[in-house]
Amino acid sequence: MYNWKELLDYVNGELARLPFDRKPAELYAPIRYVLSIGGKRIRPVLMLMAYNLYREDAKGIASQALAIEIYHNYTLLHDDLMDHADMRRGMPTVHKKWDENAAILSGDSMLVMAYQYMMKDCPSEHVGEVMRLFTETALEIGEGQQYDIEFEGRSDVSEDEYIEMIRLKTSVLLACALKIGAVLGGASRQDADALYRFGESLGLAFQLQDDYLDVYGDPAVFGKKIGGDILCNKKTYMLINALGRAQGEDRTLLKQWLSQKDGTYAAEEKVAAVTALYNKIGIRELCDEKIRFYFEKARRILGEVSLPEERKRLLWEMAESLLGRKS
Amino acid sequence: MYNWKELLDYVNGELARLPFDRKPAELYAPIRYVLSIGGKRIRPVLMLMAYNLYREDAKGIASQALAIEIYHNYTLLHDDLMDHADMRRGMPTVHKKWDENAAILSGDSMLVMAYQYMMKDCPSEHVGEVMRLFTETALEIGEGQQYDIEFEGRSDVSEDEYIEMIRLKTSVLLACALKIGAVLGGASRQDADALYRFGESLGLAFQLQDDYLDVYGDPAVFGKKIGGDILCNKKTYMLINALGRAQGEDRTLLKQWLSQKDGTYAAEEKVAAVTALYNKIGIRELCDEKIRFYFEKARRILGEVSLPEERKRLLWEMAESLLGRKS
Repeated sequence: MYNWKELLDYVNGELARLPFDRKPAELYAPIRYVLSIGGKRIRPVLMLMAYNLYREDAKGIASQALAIEIYHNYTLLHDDLMDHADMRRGMPTVHKKWDENAAILSGDSMLVMAYQYMMKDCPSEHVGEVMRLFTETALEIGEGQQYDIEFEGRSDVSEDEYIEMIRLKTSVLLACALKIGAVLGGASRQDADALYRFGESLGLAFQLQDDYLDVYGDPAVFGKKIGGDILCNKKTYMLINALGRAQGEDRTLLKQWLSQKDGTYAAEEKVAAVTALYNKIGIRELCDEKIRFYFEKARRILGEVSLPEERKRLLWEMAESLLGRKS
Repeated sequence: MYNWKELLDYVNGELARLPFDRKPAELYAPIRYVLSIGGKRIRPVLMLMAYNLYREDAKGIASQALAIEIYHNYTLLHDDLMDHADMRRGMPTVHKKWDENAAILSGDSMLVMAYQYMMKDCPSEHVGEVMRLFTETALEIGEGQQYDIEFEGRSDVSEDEYIEMIRLKTSVLLACALKIGAVLGGASRQDADALYRFGESLGLAFQLQDDYLDVYGDPAVFGKKIGGDILCNKKTYMLINALGRAQGEDRTLLKQWLSQKDGTYAAEEKVAAVTALYNKIGIRELCDEKIRFYFEKARRILGEVSLPEERKRLLWEMAESLLGRKS
């Protein structure tokens, strides 16, 4: 079996070999750019690992692995445009480096390329199921992004609504990647469905951890500035629960910070104050418990997959590594 | 066989029956809106007509016909956003009625829906070919749009470059619609390819006619204000050839009008002056001849399709009607 690092190198090699020989060059330059910036390639590697559970040749589905990574990077490209984000992975986003139209049009062509590679060399007995799952997932991810946008303008987002939003926006793509790998590897229906649900729980844990690290992460490891979500009042799992729990003067203080206009305070002051409040009313533990809940749920679901434990070890080690914790 | 009107009513009925039962409603409202505004439904009707050449039941490929119309309307939605166009078919565009993010995200979901319907109920023996053709076409249309954007900033666009741009941006979708209808109807490879080339030539004639009518059309029939392309210096077939042909004082006059800043002249004055110049140096006849060239080429290619002339009569009558001319 192939380990994470071997598959990551394989994916990066295949991405670097994408031809980009079509014209006009200006349409494809932003696509080449976003795919070259890097990233953890989690989705294609998960797909290859799921395939590798059932086949010794993990590299038989290079096109589908590329497709899911191209698709993921298209969502980042268009999301960054919609969010007016200037930087991604330490590099200027496409609408900053080129312009908004380049971001719209190149993103659109990436979505078409994702379909192109998803179909390429896909065995005819599986192509229908793979394409239907990929399409359903792409619709769900659009729905998740729409909820994310709508939640910005709402102050009454519930925990359940938030979990459903991140399930749609983040988890279903991990789940889809794993299931496509399993289906193409020849897994049983039960195994393929279990790997889908494993990906869903892993994705929820992963996104909640991302929220958590935005507050409690080590800046050197996290790779982003700490406190970004707090500064923009992003309705994360933590803020939603803080709004639900804070009482009395804690509540007054939180509401005050949320209604402060930008520029009327030092950023560090707001981050420190809201973090202190989270600590005081138990939000840090609450979020950590929720991450562990989905992490353990993922572990139980992986247990349902009808393969020897030894065969599933590398996949579980990857989950542990992604979440930075041991079960 | 079904005539144009019957198939148009059928397509409009199917579009009106699209469920839109997914959530969030706000994501799907703009999609429902653009599909309800109308349009000539040329692409799905052409697809059904091509299918009907080989099958008595023209309505066996409703999903694919819907897919091509959803796809076409997604391109209009994103093109209008990129062109900052406020109106389409007499109604506000999505980014005006909602906002830019709604236009990006709803358009993206329309592209996914187009794939969803293109695959739906597609016979397994044809699904690979249909999806590959649709995907190649979608890439080409993105390339055509990119050339269109690039040509705005160039003053040396050649006639060949312009024809290739409109082939990519407009013709290949008509060609794709016809070929998919033929393939699904069970046409031979030769017939399916001929219908593709028929669509290409018809599309070129159709787009050149659109350019022509923008100058010489009857405003009441054309549905848009006359002279829009002249006012924005759009490098149409006519302007490209005028720049190539005009000599002496004609050339000086044309260059002057092209370099005038907006607001320094009355719109009607510029339209009248450039139109007069086109008339004087034979651009009107040149464009009319080019339209007839592609129209006749389409007629010859349709002649290659191995069916009795009577069987092809309705399709040819539709081509005549689209171009408003008789062969």
